[in-house]
Amino acid sequence: MLIVMTKGSPEKDLEDILEKLTQMGFTGHVSKGVERTVIGVVGRTYPELKDMMEMWSGVSEVVLISKPYKLSSREFQPQDTRIRVGDLTIGGEEIVVMAGPCAVESEEQVLQTARAVKAAGANILRGGAFKPSSSPYTFRGLGEDGLKILALASQETGMPVITEVMTPQDVELVSRYADILQVGTRNMQNFILLDEVGKAQKPVMLKRGMSATIEEWLLSAEYILAQGNRQLLLCERGIRTFETYTRNTMDISAIPIIQKLSHLPIIADPSHGTGRWHLVAPLALASVAAGADGLMIEVHPNPESALKDGAQSLTFENFERLMEQVVAVALSMGRKMAGSAKGEAKEVAKGN
Amino acid sequence: MLIVMTKGSPEKDLEDILEKLTQMGFTGHVSKGVERTVIGVVGRTYPELKDMMEMWSGVSEVVLISKPYKLSSREFQPQDTRIRVGDLTIGGEEIVVMAGPCAVESEEQVLQTARAVKAAGANILRGGAFKPSSSPYTFRGLGEDGLKILALASQETGMPVITEVMTPQDVELVSRYADILQVGTRNMQNFILLDEVGKAQKPVMLKRGMSATIEEWLLSAEYILAQGNRQLLLCERGIRTFETYTRNTMDISAIPIIQKLSHLPIIADPSHGTGRWHLVAPLALASVAAGADGLMIEVHPNPESALKDGAQSLTFENFERLMEQVVAVALSMGRKMAGSAKGEAKEVAKGN
Amino acid sequence: MLIVMTKGSPEKDLEDILEKLTQMGFTGHVSKGVERTVIGVVGRTYPELKDMMEMWSGVSEVVLISKPYKLSSREFQPQDTRIRVGDLTIGGEEIVVMAGPCAVESEEQVLQTARAVKAAGANILRGGAFKPSSSPYTFRGLGEDGLKILALASQETGMPVITEVMTPQDVELVSRYADILQVGTRNMQNFILLDEVGKAQKPVMLKRGMSATIEEWLLSAEYILAQGNRQLLLCERGIRTFETYTRNTMDISAIPIIQKLSHLPIIADPSHGTGRWHLVAPLALASVAAGADGLMIEVHPNPESALKDGAQSLTFENFERLMEQVVAVALSMGRKMAGSAKGEAKEVAKGN
Amino acid sequence: MLIVMTKGSPEKDLEDILEKLTQMGFTGHVSKGVERTVIGVVGRTYPELKDMMEMWSGVSEVVLISKPYKLSSREFQPQDTRIRVGDLTIGGEEIVVMAGPCAVESEEQVLQTARAVKAAGANILRGGAFKPSSSPYTFRGLGEDGLKILALASQETGMPVITEVMTPQDVELVSRYADILQVGTRNMQNFILLDEVGKAQKPVMLKRGMSATIEEWLLSAEYILAQGNRQLLLCERGIRTFETYTRNTMDISAIPIIQKLSHLPIIADPSHGTGRWHLVAPLALASVAAGADGLMIEVHPNPESALKDGAQSLTFENFERLMEQVVAVALSMGRKMAGSAKGEAKEVAKGN
Repeated sequence: MLIVMTKGSPEKDLEDILEKLTQMGFTGHVSKGVERTVIGVVGRTYPELKDMMEMWSGVSEVVLISKPYKLSSREFQPQDTRIRVGDLTIGGEEIVVMAGPCAVESEEQVLQTARAVKAAGANILRGGAFKPSSSPYTFRGLGEDGLKILALASQETGMPVITEVMTPQDVELVSRYADILQVGTRNMQNFILLDEVGKAQKPVMLKRGMSATIEEWLLSAEYILAQGNRQLLLCERGIRTFETYTRNTMDISAIPIIQKLSHLPIIADPSHGTGRWHLVAPLALASVAAGADGLMIEVHPNPESALKDGAQSLTFENFERLMEQVVAVALSMGRKMAGSAKGEAKEVAKGN
Repeated sequence: MLIVMTKGSPEKDLEDILEKLTQMGFTGHVSKGVERTVIGVVGRTYPELKDMMEMWSGVSEVVLISKPYKLSSREFQPQDTRIRVGDLTIGGEEIVVMAGPCAVESEEQVLQTARAVKAAGANILRGGAFKPSSSPYTFRGLGEDGLKILALASQETGMPVITEVMTPQDVELVSRYADILQVGTRNMQNFILLDEVGKAQKPVMLKRGMSATIEEWLLSAEYILAQGNRQLLLCERGIRTFETYTRNTMDISAIPIIQKLSHLPIIADPSHGTGRWHLVAPLALASVAAGADGLMIEVHPNPESALKDGAQSLTFENFERLMEQVVAVALSMGRKMAGSAKGEAKEVAKGN
Repeated sequence: MLIVMTKGSPEKDLEDILEKLTQMGFTGHVSKGVERTVIGVVGRTYPELKDMMEMWSGVSEVVLISKPYKLSSREFQPQDTRIRVGDLTIGGEEIVVMAGPCAVESEEQVLQTARAVKAAGANILRGGAFKPSSSPYTFRGLGEDGLKILALASQETGMPVITEVMTPQDVELVSRYADILQVGTRNMQNFILLDEVGKAQKPVMLKRGMSATIEEWLLSAEYILAQGNRQLLLCERGIRTFETYTRNTMDISAIPIIQKLSHLPIIADPSHGTGRWHLVAPLALASVAAGADGLMIEVHPNPESALKDGAQSLTFENFERLMEQVVAVALSMGRKMAGSAKGEAKEVAKGN
Repeated sequence: MLIVMTKGSPEKDLEDILEKLTQMGFTGHVSKGVERTVIGVVGRTYPELKDMMEMWSGVSEVVLISKPYKLSSREFQPQDTRIRVGDLTIGGEEIVVMAGPCAVESEEQVLQTARAVKAAGANILRGGAFKPSSSPYTFRGLGEDGLKILALASQETGMPVITEVMTPQDVELVSRYADILQVGTRNMQNFILLDEVGKAQKPVMLKRGMSATIEEWLLSAEYILAQGNRQLLLCERGIRTFETYTRNTMDISAIPIIQKLSHLPIIADPSHGTGRWHLVAPLALASVAAGADGLMIEVHPNPESALKDGAQSLTFENFERLMEQVVAVALSMGRKMAGSAKGEAKEVAKGN
């Protein structure tokens, strides 16, 4: 952190600032240039300091040099984080695919979908038992019954399960059934929940807040990492802009940016990222081409009657077609799909 | 809700849709125009239906006519909601002022501030005991100790207290000390928390999410109202835009819009709305001129060394000056300040 | 401008940078701190340099300290710019009101409106002869015929005229009829047009681009000032955000920000800023309370049948009511309305 | 267009509306439903009508059903537009690559770059002779001298040239030297310029405005098409959001959306779309995977000393590497690169 003094500010200001820095536990190192005096601040700084220090007498500008996040940064850990879930490794050379319905509606719906997506090459089953919804009058999920259905489908297909946890009290419950805990976009800055999943013994996937900067997202990741849970995945799912044709604008650039700034795996969710099923395939392929470590795709046996987010869900047939394209693009990028036991999966599916 | 059919769609599509509507518990009424057939849908609809129905065969467009929120709407309750807190009435002709430090730091800091803001004409004491912060490495509040300090200051000055509750587990605890529970911007869509404060016996102030549309905000209000708690205030605190000079862009138009769409009182928070102390006064005055029912202002004995949000906090002197201007603008608008016992307040202050 | 070197960067990098700076006509002054080496760059710098310099080997960060605009800044000219138009002074203690129809439709429409707004206290007549429109299939204005109608109305009422010029070729033509040239939001970065109005002998009002930062706006002002035209007004007219209830989100904070950063007068346009007539009055009052030097308001004899922007136009009656409130708020702020010859204006109106 | 009447609105309102519609040249068809009366409006409608009609007495809501653009829509022309430029076809199965420096700086710089990008497989030479710049104090291009240099490089390498035209007066001049006229992001709504390039005999590439919705973009396209010029390409180049890491957020979803709504070819510009050279390759590949018909890439012999946009320019080496990846991804998508005479190009390059 650098404090740039205003031209011609009195010596007294400089002295006062150095004293304040000491009181706050920082060390200040003064460099007097021809036009400007600059104070280098050493210590664990954070973004809010900038605003405060810019109020100090004699200060022209405060510059944050070191990034405010640490554990999630490439500087802290140069090599990629790899997360083991069952036989899968997320964050390596292989691309993982998470697929399933937006919301768990019934055992049949989930089992049917699980078999279909596995047959098409998916590695992880997604499905919501606790559903955030902007309106209190809509379906809010089956709760623990939904978790049980997911566990059943996991057992049958051998796919691990990822599902959302919405509140600190539920972390233990959801951990009992799920292989990966998902923190949703509306909870990216639910700090108490972040603390709690940070203490869980399960991998966590943290979705980007719909109006969060990348820096804020990495700071939220920091909450989880700081509690000791290093099995963390990030998920880009679209941000809010002025465009109204799509529900969100998917920020594909976030994929290479995260990979540059952080060692954490990055998953792309084109279903929420666009909100429209006919955009899911092109954005899924774009995500793979941009280097994503995985995809999360909503699939439903009958999107037209889905209780939740049917408009962004693929049919089994569309998902199967997409997977073929994903494989092709992945290969062209020199990457391969996780669990290439795709043929085997197909047999399982046929057996049902 | 209206379903507009595509030109020349087959009769079969129309029949299928009417059947689906019946299955979903809605009634469909068909109007055949010269160019278009339109189905009027009667029943409790919600925004997500639009996306789903637009996937149905033969559908060109779905139009939401009735608003998705109900209890918070002017249609449901034409007259303004008035909330009693101690001797105050929020939401009537009088303008209330909530003031105090961003975060509770110490007994002395809070008491000193409480006396000063009361002397200047504030009606309600604000202060955070649980502080959301984008970084895990910054001050997160004193917790229950902070609540105790607020209660003490309330007792001494006679001002009711408003403070934030961040998680469902804490609703009971915070309710024991506070007169108004605040739900912060990052929790506007923390639906479990909304449910919980909806069950509390205390008034609630719901801040607008930093990227929430006004409709989403009213839907979040609906969660609280639907649980039976009708003592609800809304608070505009700035939204996220591309502008970087301010921390947020305060949406002053939200004030008259809320008053048109809803019966709930609307408070303006220019401290968070701008993030810069020198903008707090002009935006506070603008809020009053636009018709706000109250203001929430951050005041600190020494903003330059505040543990939190010093950059947007007013000194005692600046707050006093602002209050004089607020009174003048309020009068010019034909409104008066709550608890005009300002002289009395001054004596209390002098006594200390 | 400061170049902050990365920790431990080789001496060779520093030497190379100093040489490059010299070649580019800048001078570099090196300050070696304990942790970081910082180079102060002296010379006329500009924002794009930052991106380029951050590519240089050994550079960690580049910090722009001096603002990229100069002639529009308070540093360059501490006292407010005051612009004389006829008997009016814009930018002083008085608040000016520009009012009239969005588009010139007919002589009768303009004359009728001009008389009504003058009677209600407006000082300047607005009206568009050249109308930008998102669609090529809508009304694009009467062109020179429209300018003639405005001139006629100006002659009859004694009010100066402000009207938009859309393209460099038309600057001379519009200057013949108008007293103030308006550059619209879509042309804020039409640099050739900015050059051209910068050469004109008429005052110019530059509207903020709908997605322009305040810094970019001041840089566009710089184009006009740099050509020698110092009679420049700025106009806030709403920015684009994710909110869909309003056409734009009016950034009221831009008013005090411009007044802090620049000496140029700032006008508020709540008609375009909201796009809805029932929000015009509250936002107009908010603008005055925030310190605006003037208002621009769309008024139409019959908004329901206006060829352009009827939804945001006030009727004569609504405008008259608004003016009464504006006067009250202005007084409460210690300001007065321009041309307080309001009584006189009323007589003129009665005479017609 | 549908006008939805409010429940219980008087018959008189309906009659008045029908009369107004007739006066405006529309026909109104009334459908009386159980709850609502709906008027279908037939005629050439446009978005602004909605706002106006919603002011009419008795109107609850106005719904735009037909899109406001026509000539650019798939409905108007189902098959893809293909544009011939020399031997190239843009908009077919082949992917075209436009590459070159941001700004023309010197003959040597352009020739060197032209040879290098051609050798690497580019098809069209880009380069700016007239440069829009946010600040009047920066490089604004070489003007006609720059056009001459581009023409020279075109002659030598056989590549057609695309370059920006900034103002109506220059359309003829630029047309003399360029093969494709580019309308930049800041001029997307410079309607006079759109008219003028619509009259030109050259293909035009229209960049998306940095805060334009897709609908507005297509409406701007309509201006050009309506003047008779059907040789039109669209270019996505990033939109403005709250994210600050990138200069813009590239809206990859715009690629498949344009292809769904319109028959016009869509080009992606990841250089401006991100503003950072290390993001250009991943976003270029993402664009191809999302289905783009072409890429526009900034390449510079020495980005570190470019007069303009060096931070987003690729070196020759990085561009060559990118092209190899682009070919691989294109093939995986079943598409091929335009002018596969890549070997031949390499020989030309070697010859120099």
